[in-house]
This record gives sequence, C-alpha cells and structure tokens, in this order.
Amino acid sequence: MIEIGQTYSHDFKFTQDEVNRFAEVTGDKNPVHTDADFAAKTMFKKPIMHGMLGAALFSKVFGVLFPGEGTIYLKQSLSFLKPMYVEVEYEAVFTVKEVLGDKHRAIVETLIKDRATGNVCTSGEATILNMDKI
Amino acid sequence: MIEIGQTYSHDFKFTQDEVNRFAEVTGDKNPVHTDADFAAKTMFKKPIMHGMLGAALFSKVFGVLFPGEGTIYLKQSLSFLKPMYVEVEYEAVFTVKEVLGDKHRAIVETLIKDRATGNVCTSGEATILNMDKI
Repeated sequence: MIEIGQTYSHDFKFTQDEVNRFAEVTGDKNPVHTDADFAAKTMFKKPIMHGMLGAALFSKVFGVLFPGEGTIYLKQSLSFLKPMYVEVEYEAVFTVKEVLGDKHRAIVETLIKDRATGNVCTSGEATILNMDKI
Repeated sequence: MIEIGQTYSHDFKFTQDEVNRFAEVTGDKNPVHTDADFAAKTMFKKPIMHGMLGAALFSKVFGVLFPGEGTIYLKQSLSFLKPMYVEVEYEAVFTVKEVLGDKHRAIVETLIKDRATGNVCTSGEATILNMDKI
C-alpha cells in the first residue's frame, strides 16, 4: 500500500526516432521537435522533446510500475520549466504527498530531472485512484 | 493576435492502431489501452485511450494551429473526467481566458468533448507564450 513520503524513481531517455514517432502518432509535428535545422534557429538550438512525451512517462509509471495495475489517472498538473532534449538522460521522480485511504486516492508530486545536472525540467502533481493499492 | 474570449475547435479521433503505437513509443503499455479482452473485464468494458494522448492534442493545436508556430508551452492542468475510447469522435475546444500582452502570454481553457454527447471528458487550463502572436 502506498504511504505518505514514499518515493519512486524511473530513468528514461528518448531518441530522435522515438520523438519523430510521437510527432507522427499525435499529429504534433511542430518542427522544433523533429527538424534539427529548424531547431538550430530557435532559442533551443537543437530539437526538443514534446513536453507531453515527458508527461506520458508519469502515466506509464502510474499505470505499469508505481502503484501499477488498476491505477486510474484523475488529475495532472504540469509546469514545463526547462526544455528537454533527445538523447539526454532524465529521471522521473515521484513523491507521495497525501493519501486519502477512504477514497483510495493519492496525491503525488511528479518531477522530471536532468540526471546530469539535477535540474528540474518538468514539475507537477498527480491525483490517482487505485482500489487495491491505495 | 489572440484576444480574450476567442475560441478554437479541433476534431480528432484515434484508431486502436494509433493507441498501440502511442503505447509503444511512450512505454505506457497498460493493457487497458491495448488489450480488448483485458479491458472487457474492467469498469471501462473496452480499450480506453491514454489520457496523455488526448492531452497531446492540446500541444499539437498550440504548436501547429492556434496560435501556431513559435508557441512555447509553459503550463497545463488536466482533469481526466471521463474515459475516452478509440474510434470515437472528440473535439478539443479552446477558449482564451486571459491575455498578458506585456509578457506575450495567454491562459487558455482546454476541453475535450465527446462530439456525439457533448460530455466533457478532459478539462484543464494552459499557459502559453508566443512572442509574435500574443
């Protein structure tokens, strides 16, 4: 059962090919994500990941790893603080802030950090429901 | 230039194949999204879309359509109110709530509605930055 203060961490990295596939399937073909020449002329200098691709990692962890099967995603707030780049190692860090046991709900802080610098690139908070694990 | 009260609407639908590809690229392989037999035994009865795949539509519209090129995504809140299914027509509806012209920022209500019923499946609010269009 999930407890207040519990943490979970998940490392990830996306390749340019994966970002291109995310652009294809979602239709979000903003060239800043997929075209290195275009991105070079922006403030980002090189292609950046879609913020929602990072956020999808939160969904993956909740649904598959922590707390895993049976999780229903109720809410997520997202602040895109710094750009995230392809081929860079990031860490999604989860900290349980509140457990509402009678409602089987938990409020979880969700961060994405650059593994090399520790900088927080995306911050936010999730509300999840799991009848068996919360 | 974006104005308070302005609205924008974008219809979309995802196939099971697209949901499967989203699961592959994000790693969110929760079988409730991809396995009809598994989903049939859940409260959803049939495969549901990833909430973040719906949210990716917000990113697509902001980056590509409204206001389009040059948009930087700063924040997004998401409430997943009702499940979204594959092969169902949805409408992403955007309403400009606040324009901070000196900061080139806007706060935009973001909704996903079931086109047939009008039910709101996902609600939220975005903060975007665009130096040329806000």
